[in-house]
Amino acid sequence: METVIDQNQLLVKMALDAWNAQVNHTSKLLSSLSDEQLQNEVAPGRNRGIYLVGHLAAVNDKMLPLLNFGAQKFPQWSEAFLNKADRELEVLPTIAEIRNFWSDSCAELSKHFASLTANDWFERHTSVSAEDFVKEPHRNKLNVVIGRTGHLAYHLGQLNFLKK
Amino acid sequence: METVIDQNQLLVKMALDAWNAQVNHTSKLLSSLSDEQLQNEVAPGRNRGIYLVGHLAAVNDKMLPLLNFGAQKFPQWSEAFLNKADRELEVLPTIAEIRNFWSDSCAELSKHFASLTANDWFERHTSVSAEDFVKEPHRNKLNVVIGRTGHLAYHLGQLNFLKK
Repeated sequence: METVIDQNQLLVKMALDAWNAQVNHTSKLLSSLSDEQLQNEVAPGRNRGIYLVGHLAAVNDKMLPLLNFGAQKFPQWSEAFLNKADRELEVLPTIAEIRNFWSDSCAELSKHFASLTANDWFERHTSVSAEDFVKEPHRNKLNVVIGRTGHLAYHLGQLNFLKK
Repeated sequence: METVIDQNQLLVKMALDAWNAQVNHTSKLLSSLSDEQLQNEVAPGRNRGIYLVGHLAAVNDKMLPLLNFGAQKFPQWSEAFLNKADRELEVLPTIAEIRNFWSDSCAELSKHFASLTANDWFERHTSVSAEDFVKEPHRNKLNVVIGRTGHLAYHLGQLNFLKK
């Protein structure tokens, strides 16, 4: 039994290390970018920096209910950053609010991540039924983080173009 | 003991599914792009598509020795795509060769991945010593794939800008 726990802990560490690395790269990039740079499109005709940051924060915020950590903290921004494309809504949060949305959503996840035991990570997330989970045990909480790590890296590659 | 193996298999499946998803997205994107599109910069003043594809393939190729699968198949292209930036070398492979480099490097990895047992994935990779591995057991073969998945996603986000 102890061996199982050790192995789980190791994989949880590997997956969370990968997540934290992408979060840290992103936070560092955002700190280095001015508000003006964040208002630019990452490439001609593509999303603006502020939209992508809001999108990533909204995806984080949605992870709270998905991982059974509680309700979203910023449900009012899902519409703008998840359901709508950039420029579809005229009113967006301010850049300061979007920066805070990112950092707050990361901190909130981090707090909850720290509260889980290794075995908790292998429990089902809230969008898979108990019945399906028996057949598809990979649809667990850790797998959500693995998927979101790729999503974050994908957009970080784009946000990086805002640098001079 | 059986439980350990089952758990390991699950973890390996999760990490390899994430890798395969990024590989498949990338291959699908490349199939949809013309040779002319691949010659474009992904954003003004940034890497050309052909360079990024060669870079991703060269990173795959380097995983062969890193994961103890054997020697690189295309060592002659490491210089252009890993040690040099885009446009630093005048002579690059043709676009057909770069497309083949990508697909061949993915197939080669896939073949070797399929030959590993779940426990093999938790063995050390070749750039960590046996001594260090005792203290840092997360530096295993699966962790290499987890890291490379993020790297691939990062550049896929950029390559996607080649689409009209």
